[in-house]
Amino acid sequence: MRLLPAKLFVGIDGGGSKCCATLYHSEQGLLSTAIAGPANPLHGFQRTLNSIQESCQLALTKAGLTDTSLDELVVGAGLAGVNLPSMEQKMRQWQHPFAQFHLTTDLHIACLGAHGNHDGAIVICGTGSCGFAIHQQQSTRLGGHGFPYGDKASGAWLGMEAFKAVLLHKDDAGPYSSLTEKLLQHFDVTHDMALVECLAKQPSSEYAKLARFVFEAASTNDEVALALIKEGADYLSQLIIKLHHINGLNLPVAVIGGLADSYYEWLDPSAKACLVEARHSPEMGALQFAQSQQS
Amino acid sequence: MRLLPAKLFVGIDGGGSKCCATLYHSEQGLLSTAIAGPANPLHGFQRTLNSIQESCQLALTKAGLTDTSLDELVVGAGLAGVNLPSMEQKMRQWQHPFAQFHLTTDLHIACLGAHGNHDGAIVICGTGSCGFAIHQQQSTRLGGHGFPYGDKASGAWLGMEAFKAVLLHKDDAGPYSSLTEKLLQHFDVTHDMALVECLAKQPSSEYAKLARFVFEAASTNDEVALALIKEGADYLSQLIIKLHHINGLNLPVAVIGGLADSYYEWLDPSAKACLVEARHSPEMGALQFAQSQQS
Repeated sequence: MRLLPAKLFVGIDGGGSKCCATLYHSEQGLLSTAIAGPANPLHGFQRTLNSIQESCQLALTKAGLTDTSLDELVVGAGLAGVNLPSMEQKMRQWQHPFAQFHLTTDLHIACLGAHGNHDGAIVICGTGSCGFAIHQQQSTRLGGHGFPYGDKASGAWLGMEAFKAVLLHKDDAGPYSSLTEKLLQHFDVTHDMALVECLAKQPSSEYAKLARFVFEAASTNDEVALALIKEGADYLSQLIIKLHHINGLNLPVAVIGGLADSYYEWLDPSAKACLVEARHSPEMGALQFAQSQQS
Repeated sequence: MRLLPAKLFVGIDGGGSKCCATLYHSEQGLLSTAIAGPANPLHGFQRTLNSIQESCQLALTKAGLTDTSLDELVVGAGLAGVNLPSMEQKMRQWQHPFAQFHLTTDLHIACLGAHGNHDGAIVICGTGSCGFAIHQQQSTRLGGHGFPYGDKASGAWLGMEAFKAVLLHKDDAGPYSSLTEKLLQHFDVTHDMALVECLAKQPSSEYAKLARFVFEAASTNDEVALALIKEGADYLSQLIIKLHHINGLNLPVAVIGGLADSYYEWLDPSAKACLVEARHSPEMGALQFAQSQQS
């Protein structure tokens, strides 16, 4: 089957780990979803362009639209990394293959997805972390400066702090933690310098894979892991409360991302009181963005 | 003039910032010293090979030995990064242009330089940080796992912790520090995202350049800077005391590297009591190593 141009929309949610595309027809509704590789232009510009195209092509294939070409798609993309002005500019110069390509941040589409056209805020906690709010036609960002100096509480942050703790203990400069065995087992190595070889120069996504060990260790009252989770949860609680109170608006806040559920029980009760469930996914926010921007 | 082979030795001290070569003639003594670019193979393998050759060539030129070729040199090189087994192996496979090329770690040559042929220990604190001891024909290393997860107290660590503190304060998630103005001025920018653009993906040497601002701020009682310097100094004090007490040997410890003097006043008195001055430089240790290894 073949559809007319400007009726096919794709919402793209691109981040450090993967690129999610949702294909939507203005009359038939959702057609398919597809996933391709990483799409954070800060950590790989060409790879991001490839991932966006691959995810769109895959979504078309999965929808059976094998005769439809990319130049019939109106794409709305929310990408990590384009909060940096230089990166946004570089992305906007892309000679993309689509009918239209509308660019915004991953935060913006996540907030649109979570709250629709209403004012509201999100805290993302996955590989990275960040707070974002849309309020009275403005937006506010908190945190999210990137790994390894920012993105506190994120999976990459937890993974690196766990690794630091293991190295300090190995040198008898920090307390013992079951994280030592968990990391050695995970990488199938027997000593600390081998761990260093596994993790040296690795991207944030590799550190984020270690986050689950910190939650596992905390569940058995490992003191090092407990301290890290509490430090992360305190930071997230602060973010939530600040976003909620912007301009005295009492904004609803949705916590999303791979670690949202794991952190929930550790959040401050006053932060929990600000929370709502996200209505829709970031990809749906990206679709909403594509439709609102189409020319 | 032209000298016979096996009489010309070069000691190389290679690190993340520069490669220092010292040229020595077995009868005439020291001939020249020269500096080339970075020589940490972990952060640039080919660049390291280039830096080593360039520094040797420069040293020959400065000594007026323009007719002498690299294949007449017996080189002893102590390099950062080759404590990783895979990196050491890769370096050893180098088809080098010298008569002989003897490889060891930057720690080993620094310890040889500091204590000659005697047992002793060093704590290096410059761009990176590490402890190392030679005792009873054995060696012990503490710390030095690399940036950004290890190398606590180092210049790169201080720089990154300062940057983290600035970002947290900007989001009202941490106390104010004069480091904010110092960093903005240093990079000649006006807001935090511009700082992120300056520092994202930068190597440890760029972070280490910020360390002096932390000491400056601490000297005016900036609380954030004081806390960082104290945390760094406590770590270094621990390292010194542990190295001193290895096997009950009361090893003399020399603190060397670009931040050694800056940290001195902040060290614990019990750590200060273990300290001696380094006798010679790491380059001289590398020369000593080259001479002891020549075949």
